[in-house]
Amino acid sequence: MASNTALPLVLLAEQFARLPGIGMKSAQRLAYHVMTMTDEEAKAFADAVLTAHSTVKCCSECQNFTENALCPICDDPERDHGTICVVETPKDITAFERTNEYKGIYHVLHGLISPIDGITPDKIRIKELLSRIGKGGVSEVIMATNPTVEGEATAMYISKLLKPLGVKVTRLAFGLPIGGTLEYADEVTLFKALENRSEI
Amino acid sequence: MASNTALPLVLLAEQFARLPGIGMKSAQRLAYHVMTMTDEEAKAFADAVLTAHSTVKCCSECQNFTENALCPICDDPERDHGTICVVETPKDITAFERTNEYKGIYHVLHGLISPIDGITPDKIRIKELLSRIGKGGVSEVIMATNPTVEGEATAMYISKLLKPLGVKVTRLAFGLPIGGTLEYADEVTLFKALENRSEI
Repeated sequence: MASNTALPLVLLAEQFARLPGIGMKSAQRLAYHVMTMTDEEAKAFADAVLTAHSTVKCCSECQNFTENALCPICDDPERDHGTICVVETPKDITAFERTNEYKGIYHVLHGLISPIDGITPDKIRIKELLSRIGKGGVSEVIMATNPTVEGEATAMYISKLLKPLGVKVTRLAFGLPIGGTLEYADEVTLFKALENRSEI
Repeated sequence: MASNTALPLVLLAEQFARLPGIGMKSAQRLAYHVMTMTDEEAKAFADAVLTAHSTVKCCSECQNFTENALCPICDDPERDHGTICVVETPKDITAFERTNEYKGIYHVLHGLISPIDGITPDKIRIKELLSRIGKGGVSEVIMATNPTVEGEATAMYISKLLKPLGVKVTRLAFGLPIGGTLEYADEVTLFKALENRSEI
């Protein structure tokens, strides 16, 4: 932001620019927008940041974000507590819940193994997963990390830890996205789609 | 945001979604990002919002955002105080300053006349502009509002008020954007480019 504007506005734009997916130009626009808010609106916005940050904790079971000791999913006796879907982030849970198909429970790793970024297996919530499985009653663990190098490596690492415990470990299917066309599919997706073809 | 997450996170996402250009999906992503901040980072972010909102005022001359009574541009004796460039918002000033070509000063309207949205001429800073010109010493007013219906109407309205005061009123040129191609120019731009053609 140029020197022709007020310093607190520049500092606010810099704060917005630190958020993911927000470049310096969007950050400026957002900072200018804050100036058009009423006092109450600006306070409500700042309060929402602080309240969410201070009151939201991780579920003691699945590590999803929650205000209580247990998240609503772990606390729900209707869910299948024998199936655990392992995801990278809490927002992945939202994606699965949107399908309205999955009836099991989750485990959030809060990251993926990535030695190049200094994220070793002890930096993500793998031991919490092992401790849940150690309590018994879990028949299947679905590895639902993203199909990236880190996602694959993390899925492999965890499955090697779980196999000796006699738990079935599965992985999400990869293939053509529904509604997609062959023309626009990348070669790796196409290869996976071919490799994982099924009889009709 | 689904019911499977904590309420303060939902409320925070709603706050983000009220910002311009941020949809519900981006808002969720930003809310989740706040959870990964340290206590200090969350506090710095919330403080930046409140500090900018409470300490930044409008320049008593040009209505640009500033921390002081006068903004750095109005306060600069090197600038040409006889030329006023009239813009809709403070961020338009940033755009002009980036060209490093304009040496005059500015006037921010903080909006455009739009009767359909209830924005009548008295709702934007037109009287402040008239009072500046009333003090004398201004030879030219450049109407630099956007080439939209509201921008054009506002430019016309103000130029009619200013002409009787003996001030030269000019308008930005419209035409092909530099680096653009005829093929992709819309017909109105092309018509304007043709209409405003100049001898070479």
